[in-house]
Amino acid sequence: MATAGGCLLEDAETFAISKTDFGRLRSAVNGAQALIRTLVAGGVDVCFGNPGTSEMHFVAALDQVPEMRAVLGLHEGVVTGAADGFGRMAGRPAATLLHLGPGLANGLAGLHNARRAFTPVVNIVGDHAGYHRQYDAPLNSDIDLLAGWLGGWLKRTNDAAEVGADAAEAITAALTPPGRIATLVLPADVSWSEGGRAVSPAAPAGRTEVGDAEVTAVAGLLRSGARCALLLGGAATREPGLRAASRIGAGSGATLLVETFPARLERGAGLPAVDRLGYLAEQVEHQLAGMEHLILVGARAPVSFFAYPGKPSDLVPDGCTVHVLARGGDDVVDALERLADLVAPGAEPILQEPIVPELPSGELTAQALAETIGATLPEHAIVADESITSGRSLPLTTAGSPPHDLLTLTGGAIGHGLPMATGAAVACPDRPVLCLEADGSAMYSLSALWTQAREQLNVTTVILNNGSYAILRMELQRVGVTETGSKAAELLELSPPTIDFVALAIGMGVPASRATTCEELAAQLRAAFVEPGPHLIDAMLEPLS
Amino acid sequence: MATAGGCLLEDAETFAISKTDFGRLRSAVNGAQALIRTLVAGGVDVCFGNPGTSEMHFVAALDQVPEMRAVLGLHEGVVTGAADGFGRMAGRPAATLLHLGPGLANGLAGLHNARRAFTPVVNIVGDHAGYHRQYDAPLNSDIDLLAGWLGGWLKRTNDAAEVGADAAEAITAALTPPGRIATLVLPADVSWSEGGRAVSPAAPAGRTEVGDAEVTAVAGLLRSGARCALLLGGAATREPGLRAASRIGAGSGATLLVETFPARLERGAGLPAVDRLGYLAEQVEHQLAGMEHLILVGARAPVSFFAYPGKPSDLVPDGCTVHVLARGGDDVVDALERLADLVAPGAEPILQEPIVPELPSGELTAQALAETIGATLPEHAIVADESITSGRSLPLTTAGSPPHDLLTLTGGAIGHGLPMATGAAVACPDRPVLCLEADGSAMYSLSALWTQAREQLNVTTVILNNGSYAILRMELQRVGVTETGSKAAELLELSPPTIDFVALAIGMGVPASRATTCEELAAQLRAAFVEPGPHLIDAMLEPLS
Repeated sequence: MATAGGCLLEDAETFAISKTDFGRLRSAVNGAQALIRTLVAGGVDVCFGNPGTSEMHFVAALDQVPEMRAVLGLHEGVVTGAADGFGRMAGRPAATLLHLGPGLANGLAGLHNARRAFTPVVNIVGDHAGYHRQYDAPLNSDIDLLAGWLGGWLKRTNDAAEVGADAAEAITAALTPPGRIATLVLPADVSWSEGGRAVSPAAPAGRTEVGDAEVTAVAGLLRSGARCALLLGGAATREPGLRAASRIGAGSGATLLVETFPARLERGAGLPAVDRLGYLAEQVEHQLAGMEHLILVGARAPVSFFAYPGKPSDLVPDGCTVHVLARGGDDVVDALERLADLVAPGAEPILQEPIVPELPSGELTAQALAETIGATLPEHAIVADESITSGRSLPLTTAGSPPHDLLTLTGGAIGHGLPMATGAAVACPDRPVLCLEADGSAMYSLSALWTQAREQLNVTTVILNNGSYAILRMELQRVGVTETGSKAAELLELSPPTIDFVALAIGMGVPASRATTCEELAAQLRAAFVEPGPHLIDAMLEPLS
Repeated sequence: MATAGGCLLEDAETFAISKTDFGRLRSAVNGAQALIRTLVAGGVDVCFGNPGTSEMHFVAALDQVPEMRAVLGLHEGVVTGAADGFGRMAGRPAATLLHLGPGLANGLAGLHNARRAFTPVVNIVGDHAGYHRQYDAPLNSDIDLLAGWLGGWLKRTNDAAEVGADAAEAITAALTPPGRIATLVLPADVSWSEGGRAVSPAAPAGRTEVGDAEVTAVAGLLRSGARCALLLGGAATREPGLRAASRIGAGSGATLLVETFPARLERGAGLPAVDRLGYLAEQVEHQLAGMEHLILVGARAPVSFFAYPGKPSDLVPDGCTVHVLARGGDDVVDALERLADLVAPGAEPILQEPIVPELPSGELTAQALAETIGATLPEHAIVADESITSGRSLPLTTAGSPPHDLLTLTGGAIGHGLPMATGAAVACPDRPVLCLEADGSAMYSLSALWTQAREQLNVTTVILNNGSYAILRMELQRVGVTETGSKAAELLELSPPTIDFVALAIGMGVPASRATTCEELAAQLRAAFVEPGPHLIDAMLEPLS
């Protein structure tokens, strides 16, 4: 990443606080206040947190900096998942506030998904006072080791005088393309000591321009008559990149595909329609059959999500050569536009027609649920999708729905949908957020509903309730287990006892309803989308055939 | 730890499976079956898990080994917390089954508490097939690094032929005094490959005998006329250790104290009554005032739980010398008994009289709740205590209740009470388990209730509902914050929205009731203790003064 030297606030021009406010922020304060002032100066004005004693000065300092919004999560999985959803939609980092090693540990799975999405996050982890660590008090642990698991940027601040510069560096690091987790470990005595001063973050490095040689080389492939596919990921899955890619496809005949789990995919009526690469190897095999060249555009070469006995991990077909047009930190959109100008100068992007499914009626199968979603999705919705097994028809049924953003489970760590939806709703308060959540996944981080109620966020959660870890029933067969007994089967069932998501939502202050037919689901969705604040629909799916 | 070479099953005599069953277990099988057979052969016959695709062969193998009980948790925090509770009560490890790096990450906080309790746990973490890791699929991460955070024992099995020996070594390591987390990383291809064979674990090393010189030296201190205190921890907090310590106290005048957060404290009527060291530095200061010698018996020297500006971390008073009679892995009870024989040959332990509080009436204050618990606690209960702020009177009000085991939050990572109670109930199905859980902590791992309902465990959960992170309101003042605004205050409040724990429990299949008076609480407790299966009581506490 780029070196990110900080500068004092008077030099800042590009960040959130206007120059006239700098004087107030610049005065000498304690470390916690210097941290929050630096965050706000760097445009980080939302903090998702679950603090403890070692973070109490940070908490107290919140009231000194009115620009900072603090959002409480009742588990760190909610905190980090929300930071991910926020960063994906806002394009700038939220801060987290985590309590010591166990608090960070609880938030790691969410941060794992965020790092796979290249979401910028400023991950603040409180630690014991420096002099206190030697006593190995009960909550003591090696926080640096744990944070190192995330990769990304990591620093421990040891002096209140340095916290401003370190926090500024963290913000710059988080925003350096393609985006990353920047973890700042903040000992309690650094928070409470005087001598801090806010620092304005340096602007992050821009995206790297792709060379003409690379663009020309790919243009040659596209013109060669060979069968080519472009695999789009990262920054290429937003409207500008998709439009350029669609021109390329229209002009060259290349197949276009989006990576299996995009961080943020803009799609729907009026946008270019691009299929996603499948989750199952068999699907990918079909999608890539006969390809001679696979061109990566901000995406990685396709690999199997899991290993299966006797099946390949590398999903690039034999005889297909992989090329890289642009990596994640490159100026992906610019590269696509230049490529389009070369190979398809007159071509227009092919845009999706506004076609939505007929509203189905009666029995609520997975297919009917997907059609109902497609038929009711409001304009400019944000769809946080962790629907797993029962959501497999959604890509088709929502393809022609009004334009929307799709956020997916980039890192595969489950329980992310509800927190991600929460963060997206904080980032985009004027847009409806639809969270499609599998029942098993929902139980991982259900208390995100409480945060949604507390903040009165416009999130509609649909629980795709099939009463099981249905994906694992499928995976059990796919890994080659042909015979199972009752103990294995029971481990994949979520009943008994039956989980009553309506009761669970109401218990956390979220209005909720149960849908057992398509008509009920449609009516409840339409009501929820226009009703301010959160709502949950427990969609009782017919068992999978 | 001791080297733990395995031996084939025919040599095993001390473990759970009788010799006549060995033949069936010893045959060549796949890695997953070899693992489960080895676990069962080593007395590890309960597995708490939340598996994924990479663990499907382990799941399938469960039906081949009827001795193994598999218990599903809906989040890994439940899984690891339950393994801790099980290990504390059973004195032998449960296995966990965790899915890849994120699954382990989710379970780390529970394992942190377990390591601080020195609970034996065989922590099994599935990984991608070895050949698949190079592709860095979405769920890939550095599991070994993450597991290394736990300390303890760690090994990655790379061959089905080795899994038996490695698992046997893990069991032996977990059981080697004082007990530890033994993590076995199990790649999917090791699970599914043939060539595995069960191995019988070597018996762990015994506890180390404390030398005569150490015992005699401490005897000299006790006879010197100087003021002495014995601080009891680890194995010293069970009845045999406490009886010996009580004799020492009676014969020598030494003060007896138990560490602040014992893993398992046997207490109540008919047992020696020993005060616990306080949580707050001010309490410890009072308890240790004037002490000239502090003698550690399986405990560590007292340190402040957190650092506070201008206050000491080391809570040993000036002028007090710290001595070690026995460390955690030593034969603590033997050392105490020999010391008692030296300094108090004729003394009898001083046993607690059966004295319980009068049942209070009316308003449900924290004090009244504690008295109601003391008045209703059934014989041989297991109390999993994460009551935090509102439970501060419980040590006094339950001191003369019928004999019971107390399990505390050894590592300070919150959300542990419900899972720990779950595991304790699996270990001791014939004993009533009482889980005293603060509302904020409860929200961390509430889905443990679902596991309790599924397994029909005899757990009575009391939510000490004060609507806030009350401990943090106190800590905010203690760290020196004198002035707080509304944002700081709101981050410590759990309302709005008000959490309805009755609805949440019922939503997961656990019968529940709400108590707003002492009479209601007493009636509901008495009913719950005799009713099979779990029950939750939402105890609505009057606000703290």
